[in-house]
Amino acid sequence: MSRILSSTTVGIVGGGPAGLMLSHLLQVAGIESVVIETRPREEIEHTHRAGILERDSVRLLVDSGVSDRVLRDGHEHRGIDLRFGGTSHRIDFQGLVGASTWLYPQTDVFLDLADARQRDGGDVRYAVTGTSVVDVTSDRPGMLFTDSAGAEHEVRCDVLVGADGSRSMTRSSVEGRTEYFRQYPFAWFGILCEAPPSAEELIYARGDAGFALISSRTDAIQRMYFQCSPEESVDDWSEDRIWSELQGRLAGEDGFTLTEGRIFEKTVLPFRSYVCEPMRHGNLLLAGDAAHTVPPTGAKGLNLALADVRVLAEVLERFVRKSDSSALDDYTDRALTRVWKAQNFSYWMTTLLHALPGATHFDARRQLAELESVVGSVGGSTYLAEAYTGWPTRSERGLSPGRSCR
Amino acid sequence: MSRILSSTTVGIVGGGPAGLMLSHLLQVAGIESVVIETRPREEIEHTHRAGILERDSVRLLVDSGVSDRVLRDGHEHRGIDLRFGGTSHRIDFQGLVGASTWLYPQTDVFLDLADARQRDGGDVRYAVTGTSVVDVTSDRPGMLFTDSAGAEHEVRCDVLVGADGSRSMTRSSVEGRTEYFRQYPFAWFGILCEAPPSAEELIYARGDAGFALISSRTDAIQRMYFQCSPEESVDDWSEDRIWSELQGRLAGEDGFTLTEGRIFEKTVLPFRSYVCEPMRHGNLLLAGDAAHTVPPTGAKGLNLALADVRVLAEVLERFVRKSDSSALDDYTDRALTRVWKAQNFSYWMTTLLHALPGATHFDARRQLAELESVVGSVGGSTYLAEAYTGWPTRSERGLSPGRSCR
Repeated sequence: MSRILSSTTVGIVGGGPAGLMLSHLLQVAGIESVVIETRPREEIEHTHRAGILERDSVRLLVDSGVSDRVLRDGHEHRGIDLRFGGTSHRIDFQGLVGASTWLYPQTDVFLDLADARQRDGGDVRYAVTGTSVVDVTSDRPGMLFTDSAGAEHEVRCDVLVGADGSRSMTRSSVEGRTEYFRQYPFAWFGILCEAPPSAEELIYARGDAGFALISSRTDAIQRMYFQCSPEESVDDWSEDRIWSELQGRLAGEDGFTLTEGRIFEKTVLPFRSYVCEPMRHGNLLLAGDAAHTVPPTGAKGLNLALADVRVLAEVLERFVRKSDSSALDDYTDRALTRVWKAQNFSYWMTTLLHALPGATHFDARRQLAELESVVGSVGGSTYLAEAYTGWPTRSERGLSPGRSCR
Repeated sequence: MSRILSSTTVGIVGGGPAGLMLSHLLQVAGIESVVIETRPREEIEHTHRAGILERDSVRLLVDSGVSDRVLRDGHEHRGIDLRFGGTSHRIDFQGLVGASTWLYPQTDVFLDLADARQRDGGDVRYAVTGTSVVDVTSDRPGMLFTDSAGAEHEVRCDVLVGADGSRSMTRSSVEGRTEYFRQYPFAWFGILCEAPPSAEELIYARGDAGFALISSRTDAIQRMYFQCSPEESVDDWSEDRIWSELQGRLAGEDGFTLTEGRIFEKTVLPFRSYVCEPMRHGNLLLAGDAAHTVPPTGAKGLNLALADVRVLAEVLERFVRKSDSSALDDYTDRALTRVWKAQNFSYWMTTLLHALPGATHFDARRQLAELESVVGSVGGSTYLAEAYTGWPTRSERGLSPGRSCR
C-alpha cells in the first residue's frame, strides 16, 4: 500500500488540550496545522478528568475565541480551604491577589477545543495508529501514521510539535535530553460519588492519617481523594471503608462532615514529577505532559500545558511568518521558567499536606508549624495564592489581557 | 561542711542571655531572683558568639533599660542578600515589612546584661559547681550548688527556671517530656579572619558546592561559614583551601570576590533541631536552648531565648504578684507557638540553601526554582522577611512597643 503524501506548516502529534489549543491559536494567526491523535474522539470525551483552571487559562479559552462556556458552566472559586488541626483556614485568592480559579473539568476543556476545531475547519485526525516522526533535525520533518480508515500518511511540515502526553513517543527523538525525575512514596485514591457538594470550594485537608482533597464535578457528582499507598488496590476498599477514611481525615472541632453518596468510580492515581530538558530538538518542540509531569497537588498539569502552548504559538508565529529561525531558540528557556516554578509549587503543596512516610515526630510537628505559618501570614498566604491562581504570563505580543475574567 | 540555706522568689539556673535577661525583667517588676552559672564570667565574655538580633530583641534590650549600646555599636541590617545562580538578590526587610535586624554579637548581649545585673545589684553567682535542682513539683523547689569559693548552698524558691543551655541539666527533671529531634547531614565550617567587610549586610549563598554565609564581627574582623561534612576536621583546612572554597561558593557573573585576611579561628558547628515538650514541670520552667535548639541558618537561637524570657517574665509576674497559680499553665503553649514557627523557618532556610546529600538532579533544580520563586515574589519575600526579622510579639501587658528601633 502506498503512502498518501501531504504537507502543512505545523505538524502536531497529540490531540489533547495542548495540541488542540495550539492548533486553534495557530489558525487564529493564519498558520496551517495538522493534528494527529491515537485515541478516538469519543474515548477522550468520555474520560473523566478533573480540572482547576488558572485565571490565565480561562482567559486563553475565552479571549482566543474557543468558548466562553467555562464562564457559564464552570464554577468560580475565589479561594480554597486549608484544613488541619481540626479546623479550616481559608486562603482568600481574591482578597490576596485579586484572582480566582475555575472548576471546569479537563474533559470539558477538550470538548470546547474539539468543537472549536471542528467549527473552524481544523484538520484533526483522531484514532490514528502507527505514529512516528522523522527527520526532526531537518527543515522538513515529517509525521507518519495510519488513519482510522487504514490509509497510510506522510505529512511533511516546517516544524513538528510533540504534545502526545506523559507517555510521549515524540520525546524519544530529543537526543541528548536530560530527564529530571522524582517518585513519591504515596498515591491518591480518587472517587466519584453521587452526592451534593460538601463545600462550596475545594478543601485541602491534612488529617492525622494523611492528605485528603474534597472537590466537585457537578452539583450532583462529587470528586474526592485521599492519600494512600502506591500499592493500594481499589478492590480492598468498600464504600463504608472509603467514607470512614475520608470522614476521619476531615473531622474536626467544628463538626464538619462530608455528605456521602453512592461511589461509582474508584481509581489510584500515581504521583511523580518529571521534566525533559531541553523541550526542543531541531525542528521538534515538546509541549505539555510530553515534556513534564507534576503531582496533582496544586492542579498545575493542564494549566502548564496551556501555558506552554501560549508561548509556543508566539514562537511559531515568529518562526513561520517572519522567517525568524532564531525564534525556536527562545522556547525552552521561556517555557521552563514556569515549568520549574510549577514543579516547585506542586512539590511544596505536596510536602506541606501529605503524611510523609518515615517522617519523625519532629517532621510532623514542623509540618504543622509550616501550615500555621502560611495561613497566619499574609506574605505566606499570598505566596501560595499567586502560585495557585497562576503567575501572570509575560506575553511578547500582549494576548489581550484586558478582558476581565477577574 | 554544712550548707548555707537561703531563699528567693525565682531561682534561675543558667547565666547566659536568657537567665540574665529574665533576672533583669523580674527586677524591673520588683521580683527577687538568684542566678547561678557554671562558667566564670570572664570565660563567657571571651567566648565569641555571633548574633543577629530581631527587631523585638533589640527593643527588649533597649526598652527594659539593659542598654542602648546595641543601637550605637550594633549594625542595622535593612535586608539580606540571597545569592544563587551567580548573582545576588536582595531581600529588602524595610521595604517589605518595615523592620530591620541588628548585627550585634551574643557576646555583647551577654556583656550588656552582666553589666546591668551588676549595676542594679542583681544576685548572679558565676563559676558554681555541683549544681542540682530538687523538689521541682513542690511549692518550694530548690537549687543546690557549690560557689566559686567552695561553700555549699541551698536556695529555696517559689519557682525555678532552667535556662542552662543546650546541654541542660534541669531539663532532665521534666518527667514525661517528649523530645523532638532532627539531625542534619552537614555542619558549618566557621572562620574568623582579619579583614575589612566584604559586604555591608549578610550574604546567604547557595553555591554549586553548597551553602556559605558571609557575616561580619567588626570593621576589622569578619565571620564566614561554609557548609561541610559533620566529620570535617579543621586541621585538614589550610588558609588557601578555605579561601578557595569560600570564593568558589560566592563566585558569579558580577565578579564578586571576598576580601581575604589572616584566619585566626576555625570551628565546625554541628547542626540539629531539638524541642522539649512541655517546657514546664511543676514549678520548674525551661527557657532558651534548654528547651529547644535550632540550626544556625536563620539566626533564631538567641532571639528565641529572649522571646521565651519575655513571655516568662509576664507569666511569673502574674504567678508571683497576683498569686495566680494558673499563670504557669500558659507558658508552654505561648512559648511553643513561636518555637515551632522558628523551627520551621530554620528548617526551611536550611533546606532552601544547603546542598542536601542524596539530592537528585530533580531536587537540585527544584531548589533553584524555589529560590527563584521566593525572590521573584513579593509574597514569598515578605514571608521570609517577617520570619527573619521576627514575628511580632503578642504581649499581654504591652511591653512599650512604642519606642522606635525601626
